[in-house]
Amino acid sequence: MKISIMQENLNKALAVVSRVVSSKASLPVLNNLLISTENSLVKLSATNLEIGIIYSIGAKIEEKGSVSVPARLFSELVASLNTDKLQLVAINNNLKIKTTNLESSLNGINPEEFPAIPQIEDKPRFNIRADKLLSVLAEVAFNASIDESRPALAGVLVYLKKDQLVLVATDSYRLAERKINIKNSEEIKAILPIRTAQELIRILSNIEEGGGVNIYLTDTEIMFEIGSIKVISRLIEGKFPNYEQIIPEKSTTQVNVDKAELLNAVKIANLFARESSNAIKISISEKGEINITSSASQVGENSSIIKAKINGHGMDININGRYLVDVLNIISTDKVSLDLSGKLNPCIIRPIDKNKQDTSYTYLIMPLRS
Amino acid sequence: MKISIMQENLNKALAVVSRVVSSKASLPVLNNLLISTENSLVKLSATNLEIGIIYSIGAKIEEKGSVSVPARLFSELVASLNTDKLQLVAINNNLKIKTTNLESSLNGINPEEFPAIPQIEDKPRFNIRADKLLSVLAEVAFNASIDESRPALAGVLVYLKKDQLVLVATDSYRLAERKINIKNSEEIKAILPIRTAQELIRILSNIEEGGGVNIYLTDTEIMFEIGSIKVISRLIEGKFPNYEQIIPEKSTTQVNVDKAELLNAVKIANLFARESSNAIKISISEKGEINITSSASQVGENSSIIKAKINGHGMDININGRYLVDVLNIISTDKVSLDLSGKLNPCIIRPIDKNKQDTSYTYLIMPLRS
Repeated sequence: MKISIMQENLNKALAVVSRVVSSKASLPVLNNLLISTENSLVKLSATNLEIGIIYSIGAKIEEKGSVSVPARLFSELVASLNTDKLQLVAINNNLKIKTTNLESSLNGINPEEFPAIPQIEDKPRFNIRADKLLSVLAEVAFNASIDESRPALAGVLVYLKKDQLVLVATDSYRLAERKINIKNSEEIKAILPIRTAQELIRILSNIEEGGGVNIYLTDTEIMFEIGSIKVISRLIEGKFPNYEQIIPEKSTTQVNVDKAELLNAVKIANLFARESSNAIKISISEKGEINITSSASQVGENSSIIKAKINGHGMDININGRYLVDVLNIISTDKVSLDLSGKLNPCIIRPIDKNKQDTSYTYLIMPLRS
Repeated sequence: MKISIMQENLNKALAVVSRVVSSKASLPVLNNLLISTENSLVKLSATNLEIGIIYSIGAKIEEKGSVSVPARLFSELVASLNTDKLQLVAINNNLKIKTTNLESSLNGINPEEFPAIPQIEDKPRFNIRADKLLSVLAEVAFNASIDESRPALAGVLVYLKKDQLVLVATDSYRLAERKINIKNSEEIKAILPIRTAQELIRILSNIEEGGGVNIYLTDTEIMFEIGSIKVISRLIEGKFPNYEQIIPEKSTTQVNVDKAELLNAVKIANLFARESSNAIKISISEKGEINITSSASQVGENSSIIKAKINGHGMDININGRYLVDVLNIISTDKVSLDLSGKLNPCIIRPIDKNKQDTSYTYLIMPLRS
């Protein structure tokens, strides 16, 4: 292999692919990237056996071939190069990197040992705008379980039905559901591993181009094609819980409140709740106020009052204040609603857009027993 | 104690004082701040028994008194408050914090248990501009030893002689010396603990006001008065090594080189030197080039060439490339000089300002045996 490539393009591609590579994999080749030529393109491939990324970039190819080199060192080296263009030459299994005033040689591993990343050759099943995919993943993914004991919860449920795409994640203490309209006639149901969702969020946050994302699917795998980047991931097998039945359809108390004021009050309450499992108490008074309190015997106690529009009965509920901060940080509207039905039933949080509850996003927090 | 105070002022003061407080001190009162009134001022005091900070701020004092509360929680609480003004009321040993819509109570400790921070009452011994003190500390302090087995090396030597202030720090592998002119007739010699130097760097980087710093001294303590902030520290006892004798007065080879080019080449060399004690080789050729190489048998090797002006013999030297990056990151001139006298003698780095070596800053790196 002998190629000449722009430093800027190579550096951008390495920033995307090298992050999935472990730096301490027990199998040495998993610390490496694969660099290979395909027609007039150079392909950079990286995998951790769960997620694979392939990034294709243009280059001047003088000799075809492939080479596998340590991902971290190669990325850091290319990022440090103060040059427009560089030359990559594979000699045996090693890679020589040359610029006008530098010559490096990286010890590689036989590229045949690099694990195959199985691409999906079928037609894409649906297409979504890159910025839209980023926002729906970011609104939902942080609720997936980090505990792998219930595999389906360590992922994001993605389903398509009647021109609607729905994403759901839950760790059984809280749940987020986002629905968006999408032109489509397919019926699809798949569970995306949380690490894949996080990688997609990272990649989509860092690409400049808008454009669309093509999504390919088999029974066991999913592929996202984002411009010249392909992200291939296994899917989680298993059944996602039938979550719709735990979202109450009606509530006995509805609170409309300024989001920034609520967020500020809950953040302060959380300072006092750190040593008591983040439990805060929300007391809703029919007078049009909510009182947020927390305490820890070692530390002290706190009480904040904020104005709110209340429909229905006054009541108290104990919830995990960190979950409430998480969702209020995600919601972008100025006002939010809380729907409650007694202290033992879930609390539902939704954005309020133009004085109307936006039911395309639903966040549920299970109450704590006091 | 009952006071009314601006949130902005209190928050700024807490950001300065609370950082010296440990969050896990074995003596509970050392996790706390002392808040006390003095005439029309409120004093915030914090100490870790090595360094003490006292910050005085204006406030409306309705009742005199003092209280001692957990530093971290109080700072986070004040930082979160969305208010112009707040009221602090000490009740028994606890502190009530009140705003229009919030009331907190923090459990405190009897303020009599708070350790005294001994201020120096004498006249200041000298005065230096705050921005100047910041820059000289930053140029020198990072070379102090982190190993406490030779106490004098875990500090910054500060001495005043004939209108010149000199700061020196060394960990015995490298050394930095900075001299500045200062109007003064005193003779002073003291060793500042590295943690105090780091705290001063942090405080001086974050204050807006320029102004001067008054420096007070006893045989065992030093006090820096920076506007309304006082930093009081013990001094290190012991003798600082007679460092001047290891700085060679002449060299056999002098290199003048572009700083950015050298920094870039050394950073790249360091990528390959991580597994070989950061050893890089600098080969100086009489042809007007320097060649920087490094290698690790596991990883690969690298060679960069940069143009330079050479006076004297060609030669090779092995040094720790991370030390060279550290000093090149600190030097602000476009060009630097290296003075060398053979592969077993130290390498001296100095800024070149207007084509002249600036001898007010001297950085020394001991060579590695190859």
